[in-house]
Amino acid sequence: MPIATKGAVKNLTAGELKEIGAEIILGNTYHLWLRPGDGLIKRAGGLRKFMNWDGPILTDSGGFQIFSLGAKAKSKYGKSGVKITEEGVEFSDPLNGEKYFMPPEKSMDIQLNLGSDIVMVLDECPPYPCSRDYAKKSMERTTRWAVRCKKYLEAHTDSKNRPLLFAIVQGSVYEDLRKESAKQLTKIGFDGYAIGGVAVGEPREKMSEILGWVLPLLPEDKPRYLMGLGKPEEVVKAVEAGIDMFDCVIPTREGRHGRLFLRKSKLQIQNIKFQTKAETQISKSKIKIKEEFFYETINIGNEKYKEDFLPIDKNCDCYTCRNYSRAYLRHLFNVGEPLAARLASIHNLKFYLDLMKELRCG
Amino acid sequence: MPIATKGAVKNLTAGELKEIGAEIILGNTYHLWLRPGDGLIKRAGGLRKFMNWDGPILTDSGGFQIFSLGAKAKSKYGKSGVKITEEGVEFSDPLNGEKYFMPPEKSMDIQLNLGSDIVMVLDECPPYPCSRDYAKKSMERTTRWAVRCKKYLEAHTDSKNRPLLFAIVQGSVYEDLRKESAKQLTKIGFDGYAIGGVAVGEPREKMSEILGWVLPLLPEDKPRYLMGLGKPEEVVKAVEAGIDMFDCVIPTREGRHGRLFLRKSKLQIQNIKFQTKAETQISKSKIKIKEEFFYETINIGNEKYKEDFLPIDKNCDCYTCRNYSRAYLRHLFNVGEPLAARLASIHNLKFYLDLMKELRCG
Repeated sequence: MPIATKGAVKNLTAGELKEIGAEIILGNTYHLWLRPGDGLIKRAGGLRKFMNWDGPILTDSGGFQIFSLGAKAKSKYGKSGVKITEEGVEFSDPLNGEKYFMPPEKSMDIQLNLGSDIVMVLDECPPYPCSRDYAKKSMERTTRWAVRCKKYLEAHTDSKNRPLLFAIVQGSVYEDLRKESAKQLTKIGFDGYAIGGVAVGEPREKMSEILGWVLPLLPEDKPRYLMGLGKPEEVVKAVEAGIDMFDCVIPTREGRHGRLFLRKSKLQIQNIKFQTKAETQISKSKIKIKEEFFYETINIGNEKYKEDFLPIDKNCDCYTCRNYSRAYLRHLFNVGEPLAARLASIHNLKFYLDLMKELRCG
Repeated sequence: MPIATKGAVKNLTAGELKEIGAEIILGNTYHLWLRPGDGLIKRAGGLRKFMNWDGPILTDSGGFQIFSLGAKAKSKYGKSGVKITEEGVEFSDPLNGEKYFMPPEKSMDIQLNLGSDIVMVLDECPPYPCSRDYAKKSMERTTRWAVRCKKYLEAHTDSKNRPLLFAIVQGSVYEDLRKESAKQLTKIGFDGYAIGGVAVGEPREKMSEILGWVLPLLPEDKPRYLMGLGKPEEVVKAVEAGIDMFDCVIPTREGRHGRLFLRKSKLQIQNIKFQTKAETQISKSKIKIKEEFFYETINIGNEKYKEDFLPIDKNCDCYTCRNYSRAYLRHLFNVGEPLAARLASIHNLKFYLDLMKELRCG
């Protein structure tokens, strides 16, 4: 999912996202609540209409941003600017110090106003490192908040028009807590399951471990979403482990800095068909992927591209590769033309979406 | 002409310019010479191919930028960083102090390398105020340079593939000098005539005077181009006076600051047909335009557009007006999303190009 944090993927129109092949985008509850406000977006006809996107939208709950941006806020709550109680989260807007209170029900309300198709529960995303004791308390509260989210959604929507609700597995880097979180949430039952609290500073090898603990406990017939990742090789490994959905700023952020992704070879994907547990009877295929050297990154600002009149990637059919040379893109970055960021973002998003398509379709 | 100073109209692709209705764009000899270099652009197949624009391109000669940016350069030539001799102009790159020398022939050479369709002579654009004595010397040198430009172009291209060459009328705010400049240049003979050295700080009413002095002396069957202007009402007045072509940063620069142009009414254009002097027998029509209150500007960041879900201009069919509301655009500017500048530039360019179309076609 390309990320439209504040109601726009940086530099791109919704029409361009469609052309690149995006099927769903992510909006940010925290940012849109504060500016321009969920009430305004509701009156505009919902986020889709507001930003001219005609596909589905997933909105995160705002939890991650409250904690990551909380530290920037001037607040009476001390250094972090965030105060968590059983009832919800109190925090200050880092831009003006204004206080906000978000209980899980408020997050649901905002996401309903945004007209989201996939709503995320409000969770606490603890930092790394985090004591076992705190991780346990926080994870259990996240479960209780998930229950409140589900109840609120069921009480305030009819089943025909209800968006999907995804829960978020937490538990930091502790095996028993991660497993407990997955068990508690699947017992309650949600439309999909996300794995949160990864890529928050922990060693990267921990992520594989966490996926190994959690994924076998999540239902195979429900989407599984790894939040906030990742590099292409991490995406491939996560798909191999069983992840279905991602959101990530890497393609657009790297693009804005002139770092471009190039495919070197097709993935070698081996499908291993097998029957799952008798009670669900879903035919699953496990995949094995050989993913060494399947891509590289280049810095287009590099001197060596100065007179390189080839497209970024001769095998890519994105708008940028169809119409412009490396030399042109290098020039745009070199002289600070804003078109540079846009053309690079288009290419990098196409790289990621093509990769996901290949992982889906082989 | 939308301005693609460094090989791109800020934030826009060439495809978008086409959709907006642009028929010709302007490239900048000075900027493209320094970065990425005219040799590189020639090897890329010319500026059109480099930037993916399939229409004609006019390139200015670099004169204006040498003088306006010269003051920024660290240079041994004192405050202005520019040294003019009969031979040409010596100046330093304001970014790195590197020295350059541009005789008129070099300007032609660069513009040929860029693959320009309309080439401008190298001129000196004196500042305002400027003594009569200096304005005279400078204007006469500009004429001698124009002759050198024409000779160089004729010697280095065959008549079939030769770009059009436009001369530039100078002479500051002095009636006799302006008239003398126009007479000298038309006597030599060029494919078109520009009026330069306006909008350099002189009182705005001077411009009408200058047009009144110069235009009757320029041939009616050749394009007349007013350089670097202007506001919509200035454009209208200049067209009424007989100007055919303009280049201006206002639509894109104002757009980037959230200032948007809205049409209030159609222009009332009265065509007065008449026969010109017997020797040319060209049927001309003089126009009389009532142009009060035909447009307004709004600042889209204004609070009053917060919940305004109408398009910028309900009568405009640009991409921005077809797809987005004022409230959305205000939000994008408010949170600093780069898409804001792009959508605003599209609208403002369409406003200007529609205005020009109306002036052409009534």
